[in-house]
Amino acid sequence: MLGQDLYLYESISLQLRRHIEGGSYRPGQRLPSVRSLSRLFNTSVNTIIQCLRQLEQENYIEIRARSGTFVAACPPAITTGAAEFEFLPVEISLSDDILHYMEPHHQLDLIHLGIALPDPQLMPMERIMNTLRDITRKQPLDVWDYTHPKGHQRFTLQLARRSLHYPNPISQDDVIITNGCMEAIDLALRTVTRPGDTVAVESPTYYGTLLALEVLRRKVLEIPTSPSHGICLSTLELAFKHRRVSACLVSPNAQNPLGFTMSEENKQKLVELATHYNIPIIENDVWGDTLYSDGAMPAKAYDHAGMVLYCHSFSKSLIPGIRLGWVAPGRFHHRLRELKLVSSITTASAPQLLLARLMESGFYAQHLVSLRQQLAAQADRVRQAVLEWFPPGTSVQQPSGGCVLWVVLPSHMNSHSLFEEALRSGIHIFPGSVFSPGQRYAHCLRLNVGRPVNSAVLQAVRRLGEIARRTGSPTEGPTSDG
Amino acid sequence: MLGQDLYLYESISLQLRRHIEGGSYRPGQRLPSVRSLSRLFNTSVNTIIQCLRQLEQENYIEIRARSGTFVAACPPAITTGAAEFEFLPVEISLSDDILHYMEPHHQLDLIHLGIALPDPQLMPMERIMNTLRDITRKQPLDVWDYTHPKGHQRFTLQLARRSLHYPNPISQDDVIITNGCMEAIDLALRTVTRPGDTVAVESPTYYGTLLALEVLRRKVLEIPTSPSHGICLSTLELAFKHRRVSACLVSPNAQNPLGFTMSEENKQKLVELATHYNIPIIENDVWGDTLYSDGAMPAKAYDHAGMVLYCHSFSKSLIPGIRLGWVAPGRFHHRLRELKLVSSITTASAPQLLLARLMESGFYAQHLVSLRQQLAAQADRVRQAVLEWFPPGTSVQQPSGGCVLWVVLPSHMNSHSLFEEALRSGIHIFPGSVFSPGQRYAHCLRLNVGRPVNSAVLQAVRRLGEIARRTGSPTEGPTSDG
Repeated sequence: MLGQDLYLYESISLQLRRHIEGGSYRPGQRLPSVRSLSRLFNTSVNTIIQCLRQLEQENYIEIRARSGTFVAACPPAITTGAAEFEFLPVEISLSDDILHYMEPHHQLDLIHLGIALPDPQLMPMERIMNTLRDITRKQPLDVWDYTHPKGHQRFTLQLARRSLHYPNPISQDDVIITNGCMEAIDLALRTVTRPGDTVAVESPTYYGTLLALEVLRRKVLEIPTSPSHGICLSTLELAFKHRRVSACLVSPNAQNPLGFTMSEENKQKLVELATHYNIPIIENDVWGDTLYSDGAMPAKAYDHAGMVLYCHSFSKSLIPGIRLGWVAPGRFHHRLRELKLVSSITTASAPQLLLARLMESGFYAQHLVSLRQQLAAQADRVRQAVLEWFPPGTSVQQPSGGCVLWVVLPSHMNSHSLFEEALRSGIHIFPGSVFSPGQRYAHCLRLNVGRPVNSAVLQAVRRLGEIARRTGSPTEGPTSDG
Repeated sequence: MLGQDLYLYESISLQLRRHIEGGSYRPGQRLPSVRSLSRLFNTSVNTIIQCLRQLEQENYIEIRARSGTFVAACPPAITTGAAEFEFLPVEISLSDDILHYMEPHHQLDLIHLGIALPDPQLMPMERIMNTLRDITRKQPLDVWDYTHPKGHQRFTLQLARRSLHYPNPISQDDVIITNGCMEAIDLALRTVTRPGDTVAVESPTYYGTLLALEVLRRKVLEIPTSPSHGICLSTLELAFKHRRVSACLVSPNAQNPLGFTMSEENKQKLVELATHYNIPIIENDVWGDTLYSDGAMPAKAYDHAGMVLYCHSFSKSLIPGIRLGWVAPGRFHHRLRELKLVSSITTASAPQLLLARLMESGFYAQHLVSLRQQLAAQADRVRQAVLEWFPPGTSVQQPSGGCVLWVVLPSHMNSHSLFEEALRSGIHIFPGSVFSPGQRYAHCLRLNVGRPVNSAVLQAVRRLGEIARRTGSPTEGPTSDG
């Protein structure tokens, strides 16, 4: 391979690398086929294959047998910060946007594809309400009184038992009951960081945690995150090594909005990094109980040193309105317990008794089996509908759990306009821009697939696709639609 | 009045002032009668009367017709910081003690005179539980879903209506629902102060707010407080004027532990000071609904400028276990709402519906009538028992609401030893030391009078009295008791 061939080969490699570094092809996305590339670059299939092999050796891409060629979860250009991810902590100012985008959740006359939440139809409403009634009948004094600040023993025991199979089980004594997962995360952030500190997060990440970071006046460092493999560990290690961050907030299972689940190996590596560099991990596992398949554990399972503040709740898997969550803060237990004590003394008792009973009887575990199946089927069906109706170039990652789809539109599109126009059509969606402080994902949107897929949902997706095609057309705006 | 007479007269005045400044007679306490003083100082009744008139003019004492002579709510020596109150902000380190003293609340086999809480027997348990059941039947979706972060409209409407008769009513839009009064106070503190800031408080003050200040790393400035009239406004003004504090946390109605209610005039002055010096007031009105007589309003009622962050809950007047409170933050609404949003998104819905219903029907107001009567009667009865059984020199202020008695033992006594020995006798009390960062009240204790007074309660008081007499005797300790 000499002369012009070498030149051509290097030139094609360089161009492909630039496309990856520049974000035209993002981590996890598929590259054009070998045949298409050979046509595009007007060269032989063999040359293209050689280019791709080199790029694979350099960790820019992954070649998967029978599937094609994909940008690596964590390409080197990104890790060194040369590409679109700027390796700089930033202050956040998203709260006005976030509140604006959340507001329609309480309008009854909309198709709700905005807030990430399974529909109450998927929940055992009768069993929940019956059990609550039974508790008010049989344990009125428990319902009435302050519970112990550490939580109701029957409940904390069940929570600890969830971790029996973990390499490092959670002890009942480490559990602190909270008002939902958000309180757990808020307390965890306030326990291990101070105003002005920087926290590493996945990119994109749940806007609620960005809002918490903004309100608590923490800075944020976005770490490149593969839509299929999760946070880039080598970039994270750089951030740890250079003491750029005081903590790392991640969601390794069924991440919102991307829907990935990190491999058990990577979770273990994540915890090892945190332990090695002595930087706490706040694990948001609010979606952990909705994983479509079995076998995944939270990162906390690998936490022998107590570096993970594990946050979890039942809002997404059973009932949000009782505001029940919990945290296992590991070595940060004492300070977090103090903050909890003065933030609300103790958490309400009836919700704890409800969950204790539903877990003791095995009912909750059974319910999860059907919930997961339904969510997986709904996600699949809506995903197909999006791929069918949205403009060419739209891609949608297959989620591994939860009830959201992350829809990546062609890069010139703007999901804020889409939000406004969808709202006028009676549909609530969430624009991608608020999932990153840098407005990095303005061409993306998140769809809640928590609702059973009926014709109303499918029509809404079709209508969204139409709006997207129209607003994304060269002569943008509603008037351009003939 | 010349020669020896003048000398005598001045000498007696000086001695009396030193007693007041030294704390032998504390604000609001009664001085010996004129006749006793004339015997004590071996002088004429007329000379004593002249002394007292001078001390009255100098604002050291108040002479009340037919009642006697009392140390002023706010004597000058205290205001200038010359006396036992040191006018210096201090850091707090009470949390270990407080947690230790709180722990026995969850032991079932004790007589509970520790935590300040009316007994569930005084509460309409059946009506509460029936209403909760009805809500789960008729509004399961409301119970299930996230409520709007601002709270359930039916509930916030009722809360706003409570203030119809205030000179400055609370608007429904200003109300933010919280997880109990503690969350309201915690959010209010975090809204208007930062770590390292100093907050003015009553002395003594509720240990829970001291704990919050400690955990949030705020300093505290104790302001002398009359057991009958409340916080000393002239001292507070000095602190405001010299910018010694960033906020002031008070409880003008049925204060815990002293039981006083400030006059409406003083509440108004308090708010005027806050407005004039632009220093926010955090008003803890958790006991406001338990005032024994009608007519008192919170300081918030006089707040035309939005300087008062009003905190209230139903924990002491109906049910603590549902953790339901609220805050009306006035001009600090925006920041507090942000903090609430990221601390728990929203407050659980069922408790809000419960209170909305009980308030709409007028049931809650009716319940308060009987609750107040019962608490007043219980307080009176236990107070008599304390005065009967405790060592000579013990004094107990008559509370104006709530369900605690502040027992002032002879000054050489130590309520921590009393706590430990009472616990061994199966009685839970709260020692006075944790009601001040300076351990100022080690000779005081707080008794919960929330329980209907039966023979067990009376026996417990008698037993406490015996322990106090024994541990307070010159040869201290259990062995000294014959």
